[in-house]
Formats: sequence, structure tokens, C-alpha cells
Amino acid sequence: MTAPLHEAHPTGAGRALPDTQQGMRRRNLARVMHTVSAEGPLSRAAVASRIGLTRAAVSTLVDELIRTGLLDELGPERPGRVGRPGSALAVSGHGPAGIGAEVGVDHLAVCAVDLRGEVRVRAVRQGANRGRAPEPVVAELTALIRQVVAEAGEEGLWPAGLAVAVPGLIARDAGTVVSAPNLGWHGTDLGALLPGDWPLSVDNEANFGGLAELWLGEGTPRDFLHVSAEIGIGAAVVVDGRLLRGNRGFAGELGHVPVWPEGPPCACGGRGCLEQYAGEEAVLRAAGLELGEDRVGLLAGRAAEGDEAVRRALRDAGTALGIALTGAVNLLDPEAVVLGGALSGLAPWLLPSLEAELARRTAGPACPVSVSRFGPEGPLLGAAHSVVRGVLDDPAAVAERG
Amino acid sequence: MTAPLHEAHPTGAGRALPDTQQGMRRRNLARVMHTVSAEGPLSRAAVASRIGLTRAAVSTLVDELIRTGLLDELGPERPGRVGRPGSALAVSGHGPAGIGAEVGVDHLAVCAVDLRGEVRVRAVRQGANRGRAPEPVVAELTALIRQVVAEAGEEGLWPAGLAVAVPGLIARDAGTVVSAPNLGWHGTDLGALLPGDWPLSVDNEANFGGLAELWLGEGTPRDFLHVSAEIGIGAAVVVDGRLLRGNRGFAGELGHVPVWPEGPPCACGGRGCLEQYAGEEAVLRAAGLELGEDRVGLLAGRAAEGDEAVRRALRDAGTALGIALTGAVNLLDPEAVVLGGALSGLAPWLLPSLEAELARRTAGPACPVSVSRFGPEGPLLGAAHSVVRGVLDDPAAVAERG
Repeated sequence: MTAPLHEAHPTGAGRALPDTQQGMRRRNLARVMHTVSAEGPLSRAAVASRIGLTRAAVSTLVDELIRTGLLDELGPERPGRVGRPGSALAVSGHGPAGIGAEVGVDHLAVCAVDLRGEVRVRAVRQGANRGRAPEPVVAELTALIRQVVAEAGEEGLWPAGLAVAVPGLIARDAGTVVSAPNLGWHGTDLGALLPGDWPLSVDNEANFGGLAELWLGEGTPRDFLHVSAEIGIGAAVVVDGRLLRGNRGFAGELGHVPVWPEGPPCACGGRGCLEQYAGEEAVLRAAGLELGEDRVGLLAGRAAEGDEAVRRALRDAGTALGIALTGAVNLLDPEAVVLGGALSGLAPWLLPSLEAELARRTAGPACPVSVSRFGPEGPLLGAAHSVVRGVLDDPAAVAERG
Repeated sequence: MTAPLHEAHPTGAGRALPDTQQGMRRRNLARVMHTVSAEGPLSRAAVASRIGLTRAAVSTLVDELIRTGLLDELGPERPGRVGRPGSALAVSGHGPAGIGAEVGVDHLAVCAVDLRGEVRVRAVRQGANRGRAPEPVVAELTALIRQVVAEAGEEGLWPAGLAVAVPGLIARDAGTVVSAPNLGWHGTDLGALLPGDWPLSVDNEANFGGLAELWLGEGTPRDFLHVSAEIGIGAAVVVDGRLLRGNRGFAGELGHVPVWPEGPPCACGGRGCLEQYAGEEAVLRAAGLELGEDRVGLLAGRAAEGDEAVRRALRDAGTALGIALTGAVNLLDPEAVVLGGALSGLAPWLLPSLEAELARRTAGPACPVSVSRFGPEGPLLGAAHSVVRGVLDDPAAVAERG
């Protein structure tokens, strides 16, 4: 069963819920959860004033959320404030948790994040997955998931859902990996291979990386383009706080934007795609280095040492990124471009030429470029948080299941 | 005063209305209007079953819409149907109308569209506007608007709003033309120059062209890229039935996507932009022709006669369009690309190379390309219909004003 948790209620407050009295109650439960999550601890009166409902209406909603274990009552607020002391409310650190998992080219990772957004359990398994069949890889991932779920259980947490990040094209709302060329997977139904114990969503790692930036980044705008680069280059297009998925779920394929239209052929069928200039393999090749395991570490080390071939390769990659991003910025008019993924570790050597290219192709002020503070951790965090957001967006649904 | 009519309720059924009993009533009024508009004439019972409310609730809503003149009662349905005969409801052909206006490089146009979507009055004034100051152009446009409003008034229609299409970058929600290079306008506050009698919205012509395709096209999907090309090349990015506007309102600048990164310089500050290869002027230049008034007519005539220079210029323009669209399709994953605007009249000579380029750069099936049936009429129709959609999306607001 595949339930795209963060898809149904993409902007919080459960806008997709039906427009009935019952739907209104569920949306108001979501408003209370989101308000306490964003600004808590808060008294009932403070919640009421923030969401524009009466104190009595909020109390009924809060009581239900406390009863189902999603909110905690912290006891009376300390004296000295104006008015009667109210009991402060906080999001619970027990109960439902989001399980995030990542299938990387060189590793598997799983984590459990509680409703407060804290990573409570985390497990990683290094090892090359390239060219391995999906079944043994997913079996290892499942073992890692069960280990994390068991450890989370000891802390009073239970999985509200499982979200899996994969470096490839994922069919929208279906959990099928249509194509993950850097793993060698094609038409793989992950929903059938993963445990069916919890609501499952599968998404492209660049999408989850962009969502992590949206939800957890400090000062991240609601319209931005998040570039996730390692061996492949993907992007997440976030518009008004929502991920743009595209018709088939394949949006954000920045790596296959033509940069030099008659450049080298690409596996996508095109020529001169961005990935041919700025993907990890392309950069290693341009620098005359071998493809190993810690590719970014190798490049960063050599660049820091002043290796001119590596620096030139990174400069050229930055130029190619700048040309492709000029097109993307003209099409999407984002407020910012955020460089994430493994390649963000190479930002000091990529950014100067990238920004110069954007600036020289823009009449007015160029779109600002920043570097994600999550780097390669983004997809895993985004996956786990997508489950947590699903709970905040429709707490009633989780209470029914829990 | 600028009120972006089609912005507040972009997907119909007034999702932006407040979540209160009063908001629910307004949303349900919108549901009734949209249902009768899309499927009418319909009986009250048919409306009730389609929107999932009780017959009694729908009757109250319908009575209000009849009282305010937005719905008409056509009298008892003809016998022979099962059950009690109900009176069929239809959207009114009187009352509020959408006034659309267009500032073209070579013409001004205004039309009035009733709530049923019919163009009831239309006026056009030919004449070059390039290089003229905004004030005399807007004065002429205003005279044309007043003429259309007067003629519409004789048919029992009154303006629910005015929407103006301009070939340039328009500041989001502000009515200011930041830059319209092909008119020579920069930083022009159209809101201050146009009559303040009605709610006003100003938008880029490519955006209105895309909205016309979304609302009026037959079988148009809800995710598509609409290319509007004449002297400039713009696009409307429609995602899940909504126009993607971008942070500043500048999204869709397909004309400034780099195609050959070291190609000729462009007014935007870039080099080798699509407009340098596929804009009307670029094509005329490549074909060795002068820039006149009926540019597309001239090119189409020569191409039809077999002029090899013109055909080659159009083929090369199609190739450049195909390269830029490959990037756009990779970023946005639309269900279709629709070629609109004046350039759609050149489709027979552009499409073969355009489609070949898309296909050769795509591993799987390439994104389908179709030609808009509205051609250069799209922006004007989209503008007028944006006002009509605003009425359907929040009929209560119009009833209060009317």
C-alpha cells in the first residue's frame, strides 16, 4: 500500500480535507497542531488567539489531541504573566514518529523523527549498491528499518509512516522506481518489496532534499529551486511552499537540461546535458581522477590543496550549473537557488563561476544562490519529516490508526 | 486599485475564502455556479447530487443566485423524464461581464464576455504602439474600453472587472509594467493610467494566453506549458490547473533560456537566448526580410510559396525552440506543450524540427506538442475570462458589488 503522506496535505492545515462540519473539525485540529508545533509551548488562550477560534472551541480540540497523545500538557505556566495562568501545551515527544529511509548509491540510511522534529534514532550502513538487484538491497534496508523501529519503540514511539528516498525517477503516487540509472534499477515496485506494516511513500531524493530545506531551513523562502547533486543532478522546484511534481512525477530533472546542445551524449538520450559537465563522474573525469567511493571528499581535498586540474574542473562545472540555472530561473522566477546534496561540500570552488554565469546572463539583480546546511543529509531528513508533516496535517487520521 | 481577480481563487470553488460558516456558504455558492456553468442547464436536484449537498441546501443557494441575477431559471423541464419535473437552471447571459483588454505591439483590443463565456462585444484598433509613450496608448485603450462597456450595457451587461494583457514583465499583484521592451515601457504603473471604475488586473499576455488555453481549450490537460511567441517569446507554466507566477511574477520567460550559450547578445543581458533564434525579428533577419507590420503573415506566405530561405529560418527557429523546450520539459514534466500566440500560424514549418529535437533528446516518449486553436486571440480571451472566472469563484462578492 502506498499512501503519499506529504502529498495529500501539502501546505499544512489539511486543505484537501472535505468541506463539511467533520472536515472543518479535522482542519481545525490540524491548525492547532501546526500552531503548537511552530510556536509552542503555548497556552490554550494563545492558540485560540493565533488561529482565530474561541477559547472554548480550542479547548475541545486540545482535549482531543491530548487524549490521543499528540499534545502534552506541561502544567501551569510560571506566575508573573498577565491574566490567569494557563497550562502550556507542547507537541508530544512520544507516540507517532516519522520513519525516513534512503537508498544511496554508496549507503543505506534510516532514521526516526518524533513529532517535535527531533531525530531520535538513526542507523547507516555503508556499501556500494550500484548494479545490485533491488531485492537484496531492499532486504538490507528493511532490516535497518526494523532495527530503527524497535529502538524507537523503546522510547515510546511508533511509526506513523515510512518514506523512502531513491536517486531516480519515481512514478507519481505509486512507489515504483521507473528508472534509477545510478543504481541500475528500472521498473522496480518498491511498494511490493518493502514491509507493508505502515503507510508508505517513495520519492526522488532531490524532492525530499528540497522538502527538508523548505521545512527545516532557516529563512528558506517559499519559492525556491533546490539543487541536489552527487553522481546525478536533480532539483526540487518549490512553488509557494509546495513541491512541483510534474505530470508523471518527473519534474526537477535539472541534470538533463541541455547546456551545450551538441556536447557529449547522455544516458537520457540527449546531448550536452548538465550532468555531462557537473555530475560527480563528469567532474572526476575532467580532473583526470578515478571514480572511487568518497568522490566529494577526494575532490574537496584536492581542491583545498590547490590542485589546478581539480579546481578547473570544478570551475567549469560551476559555469555549466550557471547556464542551466539561468534557464531554470527564467522559467520559474524563484526567490532563491539553494545548492544541496553531496556537491554542496564543493561549494567554495563551484559557486564563484556559477554566480558569475548567472550574473552575466541577467540584466537586473541575479537570483541569490545559497548553500544548504543539510548537504547530503537532506533527503533522509526530508523523508522522515514528510511523515511528521502528514501527522500535523491530519492528526485525526493518525489518532484513528494509533 | 488593483485586484488580481483570477489570483485570489485560482482553481475555482474559492479555496482562499475563510474557513467559517460564512466562508462555507460562499464556497458552496461558487460550487453551484461552477457546476451549472460547466454542465448546465441542470435541475436543482442534479446540482445537489453533483456537489454532494442536500436538495434543500442547494435550493437556498440557488434562490440567492437567481435573486442576484447570476443564474436564470429556464422554466419546467420537458416531460418524459423520470421523477417530478424540475426547473432547469442556467448561467445568466445578463448582469456581470468580464472586460478583457490587450496592448499589442501593433494593435489594441477590448472585448466583453458574459458569464456563459460568450464574447458579446469586441473592438480592435490597429496601429503601431512600439516606442509610443504609455499615456496616449492607454488613453486610446480607455476610449476603446468605454465604447465596449457602453455597447455591453445596451445588452444588459455590466463590468465585473477589467483585465489587461501586456507583452512584458508585470509585477505580481501590482499592475505595474516593470519592463515591456517591445513597447519601450519600463516601470509604468498602468493602474494609475487606466480608469478606476472597476476591479483591475494587469498581467503578461503569455499568462493570459495560457489561461485561455486552460479554461477554453478542448481536452487541454491541467499540467502544460503554453508557448506564446510573436516578437518576444513568453510561456505560461500551468501546474495542476494553476498558473505558476514566480516570486516576482516573472515566471515563464522561455525566450531567455540560453540555447547556444555563446550565441548573440540579448537585451536581457544574456547571450544565445531562445528569442535570438525564434522570435519574429530573429526569424525575419535570418530569412533576409525587413521588419514590417504583418510579420507572421509575410513569413507564412513566403514559406507556403516554398521560399527556401524562409523555410530554413523557420526550421532553425523550430530547432532552437526544441532545445529550450527540452530543458523546460525536464524541469517541469508537463503533460503537453501547446504552441500559441502569433507564431502558432507558422506551426507547419516550425513543428517538424521542434518535435525532432525534443524526440532526439528524450529517451522515452517525447512530450506531445499541439497548436492552440486561439492563436493570437488567446491573451484577450484569457483576460476577459479571468474576470468571469473570478465571478464564478466568488459569486457572493459580485452580488454585494452589483
